[in-house]
Amino acid sequence: MIEKGKLFVISGPSGAGKSTVVFKAMEGRKDVCFSTSVTTRKPRPGEMDGREYFFVDLDRFKEMVENDELLEHAEYVANSYGTPRAYVEEKLAEGMNVILDIEVQGARQVNEKKPDAVKIFIIPPSIEELERRLKGRGTDTPRAIEARLIRARQEYREANFYDYIIINDDAERAAKELAAIMLAEHCRAADKMDYLK
Amino acid sequence: MIEKGKLFVISGPSGAGKSTVVFKAMEGRKDVCFSTSVTTRKPRPGEMDGREYFFVDLDRFKEMVENDELLEHAEYVANSYGTPRAYVEEKLAEGMNVILDIEVQGARQVNEKKPDAVKIFIIPPSIEELERRLKGRGTDTPRAIEARLIRARQEYREANFYDYIIINDDAERAAKELAAIMLAEHCRAADKMDYLK
Repeated sequence: MIEKGKLFVISGPSGAGKSTVVFKAMEGRKDVCFSTSVTTRKPRPGEMDGREYFFVDLDRFKEMVENDELLEHAEYVANSYGTPRAYVEEKLAEGMNVILDIEVQGARQVNEKKPDAVKIFIIPPSIEELERRLKGRGTDTPRAIEARLIRARQEYREANFYDYIIINDDAERAAKELAAIMLAEHCRAADKMDYLK
Repeated sequence: MIEKGKLFVISGPSGAGKSTVVFKAMEGRKDVCFSTSVTTRKPRPGEMDGREYFFVDLDRFKEMVENDELLEHAEYVANSYGTPRAYVEEKLAEGMNVILDIEVQGARQVNEKKPDAVKIFIIPPSIEELERRLKGRGTDTPRAIEARLIRARQEYREANFYDYIIINDDAERAAKELAAIMLAEHCRAADKMDYLK
């Protein structure tokens, strides 16, 4: 009997170091994967359908939305993106833990359809530290940084929607916490009832 | 600011290997301790008040029960035992994670008074395996083993009261799961709200 995987929804402000933490937590593990998104954007050279994205046209995308084939979807810069439910379900059935790295809005959509998803919010130690990190990256204009900070404060107001909050003051430690959450969630009593027969 | 410790209530049938798992999970850690019980039994040679137990007379014990100074209490072989609330609260305030190794009955009492306690049930992979282990120990008569198995089955019916179930098929792995649960529980969103200001 393969134990089913679990769905982990991860959000957090840009600059919190989400990807670093998630990749560190996934290191050397074969039971964790990212979900592959569906998008209407054209593939770039080197991108492969089903690897970077599932590439679909706008009609098919609309159909997927109508048929409830997406766990969440959103538009960015004139292109649509979404999380294909069938793909996620398939991975979970194979025993894979599936990670969705999405914004609060998307996390809420997923939660509607998969209430047993584990919701994790990754944040920097403080907003001041977030500002320092964003300035340190040197990739954003002061105005863009200001916009990111405003957005972070908005997201923080929704943090109580999440099950767990990881403070990323040290990526190594944060990754350990994420791995611990994944392991602990597999010990939930509700999932172990078969052993009590 | 010291982060408050958490209270972990651990139960499971005799022969599940609870102590081994708990001691392995505590190895090398200074942030986890067992609670010290209050008892009316007389100290044995070498036992020290406040170390093995807090030794009290029956009057004082009754007073503790009446004054709601115990998180749970029970009687075994004509002696009374209980978990002193003040001691547990003090350790938690110091940032210690406190472990209570108690039976289902006691776990329910604790839960009434400390609903935020994390409840963990440790079990062997199967009742058949439990029987093998109890026979293998060679310390119980066949009748005593039968009684333990009946009791285990009774306890199993209350397993859905627990937050987590750890299957102890491998003490090393089970200890990792216990440690992961302890770490994950410290990432609960409700405990991190101070970081969102």
